[in-house]
Amino acid sequence: MAAIDTIGTASIIISGLTIAIGSIGPAIGESWALSRALSAIAQQPDEANTITRTLFVGLAMIESTAIYCFVISIILIFSNPFWDYVTAMGG
Amino acid sequence: MAAIDTIGTASIIISGLTIAIGSIGPAIGESWALSRALSAIAQQPDEANTITRTLFVGLAMIESTAIYCFVISIILIFSNPFWDYVTAMGG
Amino acid sequence: MAAIDTIGTASIIISGLTIAIGSIGPAIGESWALSRALSAIAQQPDEANTITRTLFVGLAMIESTAIYCFVISIILIFSNPFWDYVTAMGG
Amino acid sequence: MAAIDTIGTASIIISGLTIAIGSIGPAIGESWALSRALSAIAQQPDEANTITRTLFVGLAMIESTAIYCFVISIILIFSNPFWDYVTAMGG
Amino acid sequence: MAAIDTIGTASIIISGLTIAIGSIGPAIGESWALSRALSAIAQQPDEANTITRTLFVGLAMIESTAIYCFVISIILIFSNPFWDYVTAMGG
Amino acid sequence: MAAIDTIGTASIIISGLTIAIGSIGPAIGESWALSRALSAIAQQPDEANTITRTLFVGLAMIESTAIYCFVISIILIFSNPFWDYVTAMGG
Amino acid sequence: MAAIDTIGTASIIISGLTIAIGSIGPAIGESWALSRALSAIAQQPDEANTITRTLFVGLAMIESTAIYCFVISIILIFSNPFWDYVTAMGG
Amino acid sequence: MAAIDTIGTASIIISGLTIAIGSIGPAIGESWALSRALSAIAQQPDEANTITRTLFVGLAMIESTAIYCFVISIILIFSNPFWDYVTAMGG
Amino acid sequence: MAAIDTIGTASIIISGLTIAIGSIGPAIGESWALSRALSAIAQQPDEANTITRTLFVGLAMIESTAIYCFVISIILIFSNPFWDYVTAMGG
Amino acid sequence: MAAIDTIGTASIIISGLTIAIGSIGPAIGESWALSRALSAIAQQPDEANTITRTLFVGLAMIESTAIYCFVISIILIFSNPFWDYVTAMGG
Amino acid sequence: MAAIDTIGTASIIISGLTIAIGSIGPAIGESWALSRALSAIAQQPDEANTITRTLFVGLAMIESTAIYCFVISIILIFSNPFWDYVTAMGG
Amino acid sequence: MAAIDTIGTASIIISGLTIAIGSIGPAIGESWALSRALSAIAQQPDEANTITRTLFVGLAMIESTAIYCFVISIILIFSNPFWDYVTAMGG
Amino acid sequence: MAAIDTIGTASIIISGLTIAIGSIGPAIGESWALSRALSAIAQQPDEANTITRTLFVGLAMIESTAIYCFVISIILIFSNPFWDYVTAMGG
Amino acid sequence: MAAIDTIGTASIIISGLTIAIGSIGPAIGESWALSRALSAIAQQPDEANTITRTLFVGLAMIESTAIYCFVISIILIFSNPFWDYVTAMGG
Repeated sequence: MAAIDTIGTASIIISGLTIAIGSIGPAIGESWALSRALSAIAQQPDEANTITRTLFVGLAMIESTAIYCFVISIILIFSNPFWDYVTAMGG
Repeated sequence: MAAIDTIGTASIIISGLTIAIGSIGPAIGESWALSRALSAIAQQPDEANTITRTLFVGLAMIESTAIYCFVISIILIFSNPFWDYVTAMGG
Repeated sequence: MAAIDTIGTASIIISGLTIAIGSIGPAIGESWALSRALSAIAQQPDEANTITRTLFVGLAMIESTAIYCFVISIILIFSNPFWDYVTAMGG
Repeated sequence: MAAIDTIGTASIIISGLTIAIGSIGPAIGESWALSRALSAIAQQPDEANTITRTLFVGLAMIESTAIYCFVISIILIFSNPFWDYVTAMGG
Repeated sequence: MAAIDTIGTASIIISGLTIAIGSIGPAIGESWALSRALSAIAQQPDEANTITRTLFVGLAMIESTAIYCFVISIILIFSNPFWDYVTAMGG
Repeated sequence: MAAIDTIGTASIIISGLTIAIGSIGPAIGESWALSRALSAIAQQPDEANTITRTLFVGLAMIESTAIYCFVISIILIFSNPFWDYVTAMGG
Repeated sequence: MAAIDTIGTASIIISGLTIAIGSIGPAIGESWALSRALSAIAQQPDEANTITRTLFVGLAMIESTAIYCFVISIILIFSNPFWDYVTAMGG
Repeated sequence: MAAIDTIGTASIIISGLTIAIGSIGPAIGESWALSRALSAIAQQPDEANTITRTLFVGLAMIESTAIYCFVISIILIFSNPFWDYVTAMGG
Repeated sequence: MAAIDTIGTASIIISGLTIAIGSIGPAIGESWALSRALSAIAQQPDEANTITRTLFVGLAMIESTAIYCFVISIILIFSNPFWDYVTAMGG
Repeated sequence: MAAIDTIGTASIIISGLTIAIGSIGPAIGESWALSRALSAIAQQPDEANTITRTLFVGLAMIESTAIYCFVISIILIFSNPFWDYVTAMGG
Repeated sequence: MAAIDTIGTASIIISGLTIAIGSIGPAIGESWALSRALSAIAQQPDEANTITRTLFVGLAMIESTAIYCFVISIILIFSNPFWDYVTAMGG
Repeated sequence: MAAIDTIGTASIIISGLTIAIGSIGPAIGESWALSRALSAIAQQPDEANTITRTLFVGLAMIESTAIYCFVISIILIFSNPFWDYVTAMGG
Repeated sequence: MAAIDTIGTASIIISGLTIAIGSIGPAIGESWALSRALSAIAQQPDEANTITRTLFVGLAMIESTAIYCFVISIILIFSNPFWDYVTAMGG
Repeated sequence: MAAIDTIGTASIIISGLTIAIGSIGPAIGESWALSRALSAIAQQPDEANTITRTLFVGLAMIESTAIYCFVISIILIFSNPFWDYVTAMGG
């Protein structure tokens, strides 16, 4: 039953690391964009609408990379083809 | 009973590291956005409402990546499909 | 009794590292926000109330990521399902 | 059945790491471009259209590198030629 | 008596590393906040009271993450449930 | 059948890492160029055409290094001479 | 007598590393605060008393994290419960 | 057939890493030069021709280092003298 | 005589590393404080006395962390309880 | 035939890494010089000739270090005295 | 004669690394203080005496950490109690 | 014939790494000096001769460290005394 | 003759690394002090004598840490007490 | 003949690494000093002689650390006492 061990262990390790590593970039990136947006609003209050709209479209785009990681992470936990094959083979 | 060892050990290690690593990005990111918001309020007190509103929407978005990590971490501890399978198989 | 060894050792190591690594981000992040708040107060004393209020709401949000780590750390020491299972199985 | 182990384990590990590592660059890059765009709009509101258009063309180009990684990651999980060969060989 | 070895060794290593790693963030963070507070006092002496009060509330909050680490460290040395179990089992 | 293992595993690992590592440089590089272009447009709107044209020629040149990596990555998955030789030899 | 080896070795290694790593943060942190205090005195000599008082209260707080590390280090050398148990057990 | 394994595995690993690592420098370098060129055009539009010409000569020189890496990478995959020798020797 | 080996080796390694690592922070920290003090004297010669006095009190505090490390290092070489126990036990 | 393995593997690994690592410095260095040259031209258009001439002499000098690496890399692949000796010895 | 090996090897390695690592901090620190002193003299020539005197007192304090390392290094080579014990025991 | 393996492998690895690592410093260093020289010419065109002359004398000095590395690298490949001894001894 | 191996190998490795690592700090430190001295002379030519004298006293102090490393390195090669003991013991 | 292997291999590895690592510091350091000298000449052409003279004295001092490394490197290749002893002993 060695395959259950290695496949399962690898799935657990990578599902966690994928979202952990993958959340660093977007979290920092979104905060940069957000903080620059706040400065821009403070500097040019009349353009607050344009700035906010551009900000949220951009944030959605950055968030998409976090969601790619979350999707891979959930796939590895709940619909992992390698694990399905191994458990179907009886290990 | 080797599978209990490796699956359990990996789950413990990754559940902890996921939230530990995953909290660095949001914690630093939120503090950047927050500190820039404070500067913006000091610079343009009249826009404090717009700035605060944009800040909290953005912080919620950044916090979401920390919550992704927390969710994966809790799943790995309390509803881990690999562990359930292994303990159901009697190890 | 190998499982007691590995499960127990992993729990100890990760409970410590989770809070150790997880406290770096919030500690540094809160200090950035705090130091920027102090500058903002010095620059715009009349807005001290708004700044302080926004600061403490933000700090609570940043502190939450440290608390996520502390929760996982305490769970791994005092109500660890993997350890409970292993000790219930007699090792 | 050693090949199932190593091929499967490597596929899981790399599919996760590829998107995790590959999302750092685009997430940070897009946020730089986005934050600079917000500054540019605040500085030159009359050019908001040109800036926004150039921004989104550029973001699509940066996003393309994240998509390369996502494509490789999905290929490694769902249409992996090495895994297909190994399972066809019966391990 | 292998369990005494591994559980004890891990407890010693982690109790030390937790406080060592966990003290870097707060020490550096508090010094940033403190140094910025000193600049703020030099810049706006009339607000020295507000600045000092906000500073100490914030420092207490940052210090809390160091104390989380110290608590885990002391628990691992003096009331470690894993060690208690192992010594109660006679090793 | 050891060669299938090592050759296949290495191909999977490297095909993923190549595009993951190779996408960091171009993603960050393109975002620098893009953000500087946006500043340049905001600063000198009359030169927007020259700037945009130079920008896209340059981006294509930077993108070329990402494409080199993608090409090597796809070659290693779908037309790998080492794998072809090994499977032709029957492992 | 393996337990004496591993427990003793781990105690020595960690007692040294704890104070070594734990002294980096406070040493650097205190010097930042101190250097900023000197600048503040040079800039606002009339506030030298307030600055110096705030400085020393803050330095004491930062020094406390170094003392946490020193305490753990001394405990591990001179009143180590794990070592006491092991030597009491005759190794 | 051990030589096929090690020679083939090393060729795959290095062919990928060479282009992956080797594309970081040129991608970042070209983007620096490009972004500075855009600033220069915005600052001195009359010299756009001289700047663009110098830029492209320089970019070609920087690109040459990426091409060195690509050449080595392709040689290692398709005309590798070590692999040719080993397969000619029958492994 | 394995215990003499491991205990002695660990003591040597850690006694050296403790002072080596522990001297980096204070050396760099003291030089920052010193260099800032020199700037402050150049900027405000009339306050040279106050600056110098605050400097030396602060330097003594920073030096204390180097001395903690030196103390642990000397203890590990010349009055090491673990070594004493092991040599008293005849190895 | 172990020598063929180790000598060949090392030659492949190092030939790739040499040019990969060795291209980072020149690529980044040349781009710095190039970007500074573009700024200099924008700032002092009348000296474009002197600047361009000095630039290209300098770039040739920097490129020389990349060429040293390329030469070593090609020597290790195509006229490697260690490999020649080993294959002449029949492995 | 294993103890001679390990104790001697560790002494050699650590005596070298202690002074090598321990010289980085003071060398860099002293150069910072020195370079700032030179700037201070250039800025305020009339205070050259005060600056130089404070500089040399401070340098002596920084140099002390290098000397701690040198002392430990020389002790480990020429009056190492562990080595003395081991050679006295005949290995 | 183990000595041929290890001596030869080490020579190949180090000959490549020496020039690869050794070219990073000079390549980056020369580009810094070159780019600063271009700025200096743009700022003070009348001193172009003095600047260029000082530049090339300095570049030759910096290049000398790259040449030290190249010399060691070539010695290790073509006139390696250790390899000569080993092959003379017949392995 | 194992002791000759390990003691000799360790001496070679550490003698080289000690001077290699130990030369980084002084080389960089001296260049900082030197470059700052040149700026100071350019800014305040009348103080060139004071600056140069302070510079050379300081450089000698920084150089001393490089010489500590060189001394240890030469001792380890030519008058190594551990090597003397081992060769005197006949290995 | 194991001693020839390990002593020879260590000598080769360290002779290369010593000069490779040891050339980074001086190369970067000299380029800093050189580039600052060029700026100083551009800023204060009348002091070109004093600046150039101080520069070359300083460069010679920095170069000395590179020469220490080169000397150790050449000693390890051509007059290595450990190698001489080992070959004299017949391995």
